Amino acid sequence: MRVSRAFVVFFSISVSPALADPLPSWNDTPTKAAIIDFVETTTAPGSDAYVDPSERIATFDNDGTLWAEQPYYFQIAYALDEAKRMSVADPAIAKNNPAIKAAVERDINGLLTDGLDGVLELLAITHSGMTTGKFQSSVAAWLETAKHPETGERYTDLVYQPMLELLSYLRESGFKTYIVSGGGIDFIRVFSEDAYGIPPEQIVGSSVRTKFEVSDETAETVKLPELFFFDDNEGKPVAIDHHIGRRPIIAVGNSDGDQQMLQYATRSARPGLGIIVHHTDAEREWAYDRDAKVGHLDKALDEAGERDWVVVDMKSDWRTIFPSELRQ
Amino acid sequence: MRVSRAFVVFFSISVSPALADPLPSWNDTPTKAAIIDFVETTTAPGSDAYVDPSERIATFDNDGTLWAEQPYYFQIAYALDEAKRMSVADPAIAKNNPAIKAAVERDINGLLTDGLDGVLELLAITHSGMTTGKFQSSVAAWLETAKHPETGERYTDLVYQPMLELLSYLRESGFKTYIVSGGGIDFIRVFSEDAYGIPPEQIVGSSVRTKFEVSDETAETVKLPELFFFDDNEGKPVAIDHHIGRRPIIAVGNSDGDQQMLQYATRSARPGLGIIVHHTDAEREWAYDRDAKVGHLDKALDEAGERDWVVVDMKSDWRTIFPSELRQ
Repeated sequence: MRVSRAFVVFFSISVSPALADPLPSWNDTPTKAAIIDFVETTTAPGSDAYVDPSERIATFDNDGTLWAEQPYYFQIAYALDEAKRMSVADPAIAKNNPAIKAAVERDINGLLTDGLDGVLELLAITHSGMTTGKFQSSVAAWLETAKHPETGERYTDLVYQPMLELLSYLRESGFKTYIVSGGGIDFIRVFSEDAYGIPPEQIVGSSVRTKFEVSDETAETVKLPELFFFDDNEGKPVAIDHHIGRRPIIAVGNSDGDQQMLQYATRSARPGLGIIVHHTDAEREWAYDRDAKVGHLDKALDEAGERDWVVVDMKSDWRTIFPSELRQ
Repeated sequence: MRVSRAFVVFFSISVSPALADPLPSWNDTPTKAAIIDFVETTTAPGSDAYVDPSERIATFDNDGTLWAEQPYYFQIAYALDEAKRMSVADPAIAKNNPAIKAAVERDINGLLTDGLDGVLELLAITHSGMTTGKFQSSVAAWLETAKHPETGERYTDLVYQPMLELLSYLRESGFKTYIVSGGGIDFIRVFSEDAYGIPPEQIVGSSVRTKFEVSDETAETVKLPELFFFDDNEGKPVAIDHHIGRRPIIAVGNSDGDQQMLQYATRSARPGLGIIVHHTDAEREWAYDRDAKVGHLDKALDEAGERDWVVVDMKSDWRTIFPSELRQ
């Protein structure tokens, strides 16, 4: 059949974005249908569940929700590499500090000898004592070259393609997308705009205290080795209230640390959608839940069943996991 | 002269927004020229001082900068009225608490007997023990009816018309406008969108701790009688770094509490504009600076002279102060 050019042009124009599949990396399962249904009913003018654009807030966990988190959080990988860099520059650092020594040797069990104390010590040393700007330059340089210990890929290549599509779809539907992470706010801000299209002012995360330092020529915030806010569990709704001042109507997470954020989004008189990403694909990614140390998902998975939260089964719901698959 | 309708239409269209005066309530003084010059040189493509739209952050103090603050901060007026309401509902409250008793009697000197302790006690009692939502409903109801003790006007009528114009002008020039206030973040969020066009997520302020409370049907943050963050002086750049994650290129304040925020905006390699609103018009508003208890302006006024910050002389620079003048 010969198709006239005019017909092709007409057809291309008439397929509006609303009709094109907004989530091509998602298989056509009930999960995808539930997400699209929620977005359509909350954004269609005249719908009973219509939500004003200003109130369309969607909050996403980062580790394990927007990018991978195994075998340990990527921010820990940064701290390990940074400890090594510091101890090369000054060998006395590793001699005097067991946490740094364990980090330099990539001895994760050694780091965990005293519960989380070693990790917190490592984070305090590698995440303080410099201006916010210097810290972020250091993370940016690391992200350029560091490789994942198992896949050998750059960390920012381990973002989830279906989530990039969901973020875009929500923004095109008038949602404002936020990250609300247990990870460090200054760390995530380095790559969030390039990786996810989410600007620094829409990142909520854990943080250390900072102090203001001023000289004749400069005025900087300097990171201190003291926790200011731990943005996990109850901390997530508390931080959302503090940073955003609006209750999200969509919240997306993958672990028990996200449970309270999903409760906050879904237990009110307004429409609310909770989404749990369940890591079920050991072949293409990792499979873990109730027994995992990193990304522990137990109570939130139970509540998902009781509360009709949408559970994404990565293996069956996601056609593509990483953007690199689309380039093959 | 008869002017044809077509000519009028043509003329109206040809006056583009860029040519119309963006700040009609500002007199044509060097102050106005300096502000417009900064905006034009940072936004004109090809300009040496060009700043990418994503980095066009402007931060405004609230009390004394966007609305009036005499004879005491309007949030204190809320606390005084709220203490009265509480003590009518339960007279024992005022009997047992000297701060509440002083507040009910509007005995400001009594409140200040032990320095700021009485005021902090009053704020703790009137600003905690309820959900964020309940607190904000209470403030909204108060703003509907409360009147300023001297002018008899509603508090939201005491916003500054020239600042409303500046906020609009900046937003039309691609700036994102924020409030960074020593006042309470939850208090300001109640009226900021209607009064200034600034949404809740662009408010940075002082805050109490909150806790998350969940039941079968509800999930709420509850305000606690404990300070979480005091957003004044050094706290302002620290909070800007935390909430926004970008250095502002315009910062506007009116007291020493804003000095560090203006330093942060103006002491870097990038272009930066600091603006101080100087209250000089005892007839149309209030006149105060170095000796004032509320809105104390001393060191920041000295630094304005040394550092070429723009000082707005309210008496000579502002043609109009309050929006009501335009309706007369």
